[in-house]
Amino acid sequence: MSFMLLPLEDGIAGVKGFYCGGVKAGLKKDGYDLGFIYSDTPFEVVALFTQNRFQAAPIKHFQRHQITHSNFLLVNSKNANAMTAEAGIKDIEDILSSLPFEVKNPFMSSTGVIGERLPKEKIIPALKKIKLKSKDEEKFALSILTTDTFPKKIAFEVKLEDGRSFNIAGVAKGAGMINPSLATMLAFITTDAAVPRSDMEEGLKKFVDRTFNAISVDGDTSTNDSVFLLTNRKSKVYDKEAFEFALLKVMHYLALLIVKDGEGATKLVGFEVSGAKDENEAKRAAKALTNSLLVKTALFGEDPNWGRIASTIGASGVEAYEERLRIAFEDVVLFDRGKILSQNEEDARKIMQREEFTIYCDLGVGKGRFKAYGCDLGYEYVKINAEYRS
Amino acid sequence: MSFMLLPLEDGIAGVKGFYCGGVKAGLKKDGYDLGFIYSDTPFEVVALFTQNRFQAAPIKHFQRHQITHSNFLLVNSKNANAMTAEAGIKDIEDILSSLPFEVKNPFMSSTGVIGERLPKEKIIPALKKIKLKSKDEEKFALSILTTDTFPKKIAFEVKLEDGRSFNIAGVAKGAGMINPSLATMLAFITTDAAVPRSDMEEGLKKFVDRTFNAISVDGDTSTNDSVFLLTNRKSKVYDKEAFEFALLKVMHYLALLIVKDGEGATKLVGFEVSGAKDENEAKRAAKALTNSLLVKTALFGEDPNWGRIASTIGASGVEAYEERLRIAFEDVVLFDRGKILSQNEEDARKIMQREEFTIYCDLGVGKGRFKAYGCDLGYEYVKINAEYRS
Repeated sequence: MSFMLLPLEDGIAGVKGFYCGGVKAGLKKDGYDLGFIYSDTPFEVVALFTQNRFQAAPIKHFQRHQITHSNFLLVNSKNANAMTAEAGIKDIEDILSSLPFEVKNPFMSSTGVIGERLPKEKIIPALKKIKLKSKDEEKFALSILTTDTFPKKIAFEVKLEDGRSFNIAGVAKGAGMINPSLATMLAFITTDAAVPRSDMEEGLKKFVDRTFNAISVDGDTSTNDSVFLLTNRKSKVYDKEAFEFALLKVMHYLALLIVKDGEGATKLVGFEVSGAKDENEAKRAAKALTNSLLVKTALFGEDPNWGRIASTIGASGVEAYEERLRIAFEDVVLFDRGKILSQNEEDARKIMQREEFTIYCDLGVGKGRFKAYGCDLGYEYVKINAEYRS
Repeated sequence: MSFMLLPLEDGIAGVKGFYCGGVKAGLKKDGYDLGFIYSDTPFEVVALFTQNRFQAAPIKHFQRHQITHSNFLLVNSKNANAMTAEAGIKDIEDILSSLPFEVKNPFMSSTGVIGERLPKEKIIPALKKIKLKSKDEEKFALSILTTDTFPKKIAFEVKLEDGRSFNIAGVAKGAGMINPSLATMLAFITTDAAVPRSDMEEGLKKFVDRTFNAISVDGDTSTNDSVFLLTNRKSKVYDKEAFEFALLKVMHYLALLIVKDGEGATKLVGFEVSGAKDENEAKRAAKALTNSLLVKTALFGEDPNWGRIASTIGASGVEAYEERLRIAFEDVVLFDRGKILSQNEEDARKIMQREEFTIYCDLGVGKGRFKAYGCDLGYEYVKINAEYRS
């Protein structure tokens, strides 16, 4: 079946039956810090969580209640409600039992500083300001931001060739503490597709490795990383191929926006490793490149220092040989199976001045291939993380 | 047997029969860049090399010739002779066959930029300036420096209770590209102890994990990391216990000096993880802490953000539980088995203003213990690595 993706207005609230918005609870000095997503009929929810051993209280709360169906979720920024043990879970229960409206299996998601109790004395009074039937994606997106510099969102109407359609949309946050080897950051994807639970689980798991798990800002994995996929199935329409295509698109786009907004980042750089022994080795090398401080600072300095790239691949422990390795910045080859092509460095330097480009590393060993996305590391990263507690 | 360590003059050249020095070959704009160590009787050599897959040409050369005995080694800075394939090994052979004096099995060691051919047209003419019988450790130490800001050296006379003694000394370089999980940087240790080869190998291997492999500046592992232990056995004296004690002392001291000189670092921080399931897990958590950008920037900002420490331990994948974890900055506890002690943050902040301190993390799971050493990451690190090709 063929299908088309069309733009969708109102984002996650443009999906049938979904509403969202944000209010100011006073966690941020000024600005939206408490967001919500509501559906007028229950949605089914599938979530993937961080692999950090210290999962934050909202994740533990969600798992303890084995939530599969709900119609309301609350998100706060500025405070991660992490390392708060049982008290953190109790805080969530106190907040959710104070909701001034009737909802089903409400749950929370949090982002911000680790190791401080949730200021429920600020959150509970603010719950009254929530207007369940808002369609205000902008305020929701703002509510979940911490050091992010822009909201991250995307929305499609997926039109099948027989004229029927369903909608899918996503909003995400994340700018620091993004690690490629584990889960992700906060991402909320709503859809009205009549997708069965098994396909929701399959799609999320299948695509997370190529999207949220393929990006790195600083190699740190948060206690709170979560991806939620919610469907109320209101469109009654479903086509697996079209759904998977659109879901991957949403996840990929949100993931790239997160790297692009990497703390202090000025460049979005793809690292495509091919010719590795297998996909796992390709992934290991590609992720090592996104995490190497020496590579990241060379990107910031726009120095085509391919030697640091080679060294990082070598240090990652994957099977590799100087006589087989090939490194190119876009189509400019700098090292070709044992030969140093320094005459091409000036061309590579020009490519590095771009905001987005790809570095190709072919190991010449096998057929493994993986593309990871990273960013440069500059003074701003140090400033953001040394001077502010985020 | 009891023994004493006494200070030794002339460092590695204070060891009987050893000589060293440095000359200017023009690799650096101005400054010593070509150093040597010579012994007037052959020395036995044991070396440990980087686990980077792309070992530099001097390492391949050393291994190809299966060097166990020699009396001369040449070291250059500014150029790593790495990723130079067969041509890099040929360059070494050309240089060593141009030595204007008779030596036995000479070998090289290099540090500097990866991916450029060694400028032998500069090095070969400079060989004439070498005075084999120099005792100039300062010039040798300067010759091997790249972004280091000070030479790193230590020397002892080891006096046994029966009055006999032997000498041991070490010189090292390393300031960036120091990774804890693999080998090290350049370190040269000379001794005149009558230590058998098996004990040399055993000692180096046993202590490298607790010293050079326990430090991290930026988590990158160079293509050139090497530790050499040379003995000419001139003292004819040996006592295993005393030798091991002194060797560990030399390695530990040099390793700490390297972290202290970490590019742009202002603090030397120990991360002592105890109560881990086993020593491996303790090591994994401790090393993760030394490599976390969020931890390193918090150290630079003197922010007692223990939440980032907890999160990094959690992300390292070791067995850990909120209810058992304890985090202290020196004797100031900030998190005690599920309890947040924010009232102690001001005290912790004062400790962080010190140049050296230890962060203790007890996991409360088992008996595994490991101490790793790291440094903070500030603007200078970015400046050094973005603006200069080192």
